[in-house]
Amino acid sequence: MSKILTNRKDDYAQWYNDIVLKGGLADYSAVKGCMVIKPHGYALWEHMRDELDKRFKETGHQNAYFPLFIPKSFLSKEAAHVEGFAKECAVVTHYRLKNDPNGGGVIVDPEAKLEEELIVRPTSETIIWNTYKDWIQSYRDLPLLINQWANVVRWEMRTRLFLRTTEFLWQEGHTAHATREEAIDETKKMLEVYATFAEEFMAMPVVRGVKTANERFAGAEDTYCIEALMQDGKALQAGTSHFLGQNFAKAFDVTFRDKENNLSYVWATSWGVSTRLVGALVMAHSDDEGLVLPPRLAPTQVVVIPIYNKDPEARAKIDRIAQEMIATLKRNNIRVKYDNDDNTRPGWKFAEYELKGVPVRIALGARDIENNIAEVARRDTKEKMNLQLEGLAERIPQLLEDIQANMYSKALQFRTENTTKVDTWEDFMRILDEKPGFVSAHWDGTSETEEKIKELSKATIRCIPLNNEQEDGVCVLTGKPSVQRVLFARAY
Amino acid sequence: MSKILTNRKDDYAQWYNDIVLKGGLADYSAVKGCMVIKPHGYALWEHMRDELDKRFKETGHQNAYFPLFIPKSFLSKEAAHVEGFAKECAVVTHYRLKNDPNGGGVIVDPEAKLEEELIVRPTSETIIWNTYKDWIQSYRDLPLLINQWANVVRWEMRTRLFLRTTEFLWQEGHTAHATREEAIDETKKMLEVYATFAEEFMAMPVVRGVKTANERFAGAEDTYCIEALMQDGKALQAGTSHFLGQNFAKAFDVTFRDKENNLSYVWATSWGVSTRLVGALVMAHSDDEGLVLPPRLAPTQVVVIPIYNKDPEARAKIDRIAQEMIATLKRNNIRVKYDNDDNTRPGWKFAEYELKGVPVRIALGARDIENNIAEVARRDTKEKMNLQLEGLAERIPQLLEDIQANMYSKALQFRTENTTKVDTWEDFMRILDEKPGFVSAHWDGTSETEEKIKELSKATIRCIPLNNEQEDGVCVLTGKPSVQRVLFARAY
Repeated sequence: MSKILTNRKDDYAQWYNDIVLKGGLADYSAVKGCMVIKPHGYALWEHMRDELDKRFKETGHQNAYFPLFIPKSFLSKEAAHVEGFAKECAVVTHYRLKNDPNGGGVIVDPEAKLEEELIVRPTSETIIWNTYKDWIQSYRDLPLLINQWANVVRWEMRTRLFLRTTEFLWQEGHTAHATREEAIDETKKMLEVYATFAEEFMAMPVVRGVKTANERFAGAEDTYCIEALMQDGKALQAGTSHFLGQNFAKAFDVTFRDKENNLSYVWATSWGVSTRLVGALVMAHSDDEGLVLPPRLAPTQVVVIPIYNKDPEARAKIDRIAQEMIATLKRNNIRVKYDNDDNTRPGWKFAEYELKGVPVRIALGARDIENNIAEVARRDTKEKMNLQLEGLAERIPQLLEDIQANMYSKALQFRTENTTKVDTWEDFMRILDEKPGFVSAHWDGTSETEEKIKELSKATIRCIPLNNEQEDGVCVLTGKPSVQRVLFARAY
Repeated sequence: MSKILTNRKDDYAQWYNDIVLKGGLADYSAVKGCMVIKPHGYALWEHMRDELDKRFKETGHQNAYFPLFIPKSFLSKEAAHVEGFAKECAVVTHYRLKNDPNGGGVIVDPEAKLEEELIVRPTSETIIWNTYKDWIQSYRDLPLLINQWANVVRWEMRTRLFLRTTEFLWQEGHTAHATREEAIDETKKMLEVYATFAEEFMAMPVVRGVKTANERFAGAEDTYCIEALMQDGKALQAGTSHFLGQNFAKAFDVTFRDKENNLSYVWATSWGVSTRLVGALVMAHSDDEGLVLPPRLAPTQVVVIPIYNKDPEARAKIDRIAQEMIATLKRNNIRVKYDNDDNTRPGWKFAEYELKGVPVRIALGARDIENNIAEVARRDTKEKMNLQLEGLAERIPQLLEDIQANMYSKALQFRTENTTKVDTWEDFMRILDEKPGFVSAHWDGTSETEEKIKELSKATIRCIPLNNEQEDGVCVLTGKPSVQRVLFARAY
């Protein structure tokens, strides 16, 4: 069989694009920087969405939906926010087209110019806090725990499928609280929701941490993040949770009366993850044959493939055994597909489901059945096992759990092996090139040094890990005193 | 207790707005014509989405996601489509803001003008068929059965919450087929999916029909629709399914090779329903006390409210019995809420859950419990029953089914009573004013007459019902011969 994908070691970026395009995850579109999410890619996002949504609801959040458009003036209301954000946006200036009087299709109707331009939301803090002003008057209205699933647009000059696109899908939580402490607790709680989701569901270990001032969200007092390590040793920010202080409440004048009838500004958080997670999933686990999907997230967990011969009785027997097996799997809530399409050969199907990342493949051939066995293949280890037909379907749930656990362990081991403590600038630069991954090093705590390091090495501070060990040392670049190591990496 | 809502008979439009705003379904926003969907309204949409999505998947469809933006030139490619559609759109002309050099916040950067303007999708046929060109080469690629859940924007001058907003949420199915017959079958199949969804899930009877040429979707050869009757006698188009012929395939040059290697254009359908259904739901069932939700769709199906007295032992007993009851209900997959909030009185809660439309309320008081009974109230009939505690939770699933069935029957009876056959123009005009609803009348089949009738009566032809009885008659306006009656109504 000819090789479908570029190998990771030959060209990692091309390997990634091959998987996304040939694995049916996404496609380029006619609109620069925007992608089409194809059915297999959308199914992954849907599973992520449903699982996250369940966790959001279990922690007391409700969904709502706010407008796609934001009046331009709103962006100026929070000073840091507009500085950090508002520049690269899609701007709606007109609301009507008309037929070209010269016959050239349609043109923008110059008479339909908006009085105030509208921005396609790059994030929704401003429009949401403008709404919260009407919804919050008293401590009884708090906390307000709202999430939105939406599309957002940030104009990007250099895009990569899933990782950085002009339009992307995401969720953004926006909560309002009576006290600073409660808002900080919420910020941390949602970071933990993200972290456990990534680890338990995506089988992707993450470092929980806090961003430096330089890397904070525009308008936040603190940005917490989860950082994952990809197979090429680059870091990927997989989710962020922001403590916004009273910044947006002040910008949009959102106050409440407490039990003692005192008027105070409300405390805020926001937090989000996006379709970028699909890209992270690909790069955390996949191999040169294609996607490797963790069973909990896989749209199809098991595929059953009959190996027909020409004997119609043998075919009927295979079909009967397959149907029994599938019925048992479905009773165990396994997402299973029976691919008995006669137009493609088993070998083609094997490659196709490997490419798509289906965790378990069961092949049923006439001779195997006579011997009361079936060939079971694990996608993660590529191990093939001849297992007794009797009780096979009942063993699959445990096999899927083993695969899930193995994928997590493997990714964790990779991260452990590719996290290096360094203490000198020479080692810092050398390790980044020779053994890319997280570099744990002392930093003097200043933005100037952080920027200098980035300029020299293209590595950024991914985060200061939560519950970080305190340890005296000296900054890897400046030699100035430092009280803790932080995690550097080159990043997506 | 003071009246929360305007009565329907006093001001139907105000009653509707009151329910939407005070019932927590939606709110106005800072962007003209766009609404905020509040948690209760979004929960209704979420339940509709999940149920429809299940039915789409059961009929072989997959979800995908296409870009929000459409290059302006795409709209001109299908002639009828651009005539019917493209005029009232949000137009993106720039991709960057900058700080106002005069210090007035941010302004549009004139240097960041797009070469070709982008339209915020009003519907996605054009961008999707432009993509299908790459996805379809052979008969093996067909049928292509894809659906998208998305937001769309159609600039509206006169808006009403849920019923007509500039931005709304919807799903749009876009399928491609090898033959005309298969595409027509798909169009009808999806109409039936919508119709059974509306009837079984929303308890809202609908007429299945086909639109006249005048009322067809821009670019369609035939538009099928489901039409519902609201309590004020106005019709509401609740869903449409279009047979698009080869129009979009020709406009975007989408061809395929059949088994004999002949090249042909692909046949297309598209079909959609939107958040407008939330408005339909409100107007089909609700009353002067608030929303009335069909149990299958209600986010909360049962609310249990303790009526505490000051005796702590009695409180504990109420809580214990409530918890047992709730555990049983949950085991039966009933969505139940226990509202034991001490800060609000039972009477306030009763009114609140009536306003929100919760189908069943169970009140648990100390005296009732001593007598082994609980008060169970049905939202649809406002009936109150004292039921034995023993076995009560087990009876609730059947009660919810009864409510679902009763709501459907009641709405069907209303429609039957408000569908009138008329044979003269005088009766036509009189009935529209005196007994608004569907008017079944003969029409001579010409667009001119249809438009004249609309002009004179403000009634439109809602549809020609499927499997319509053929019956000789004369047109209600022109007296010309007609072979069947069609359904007229004033409409939302």
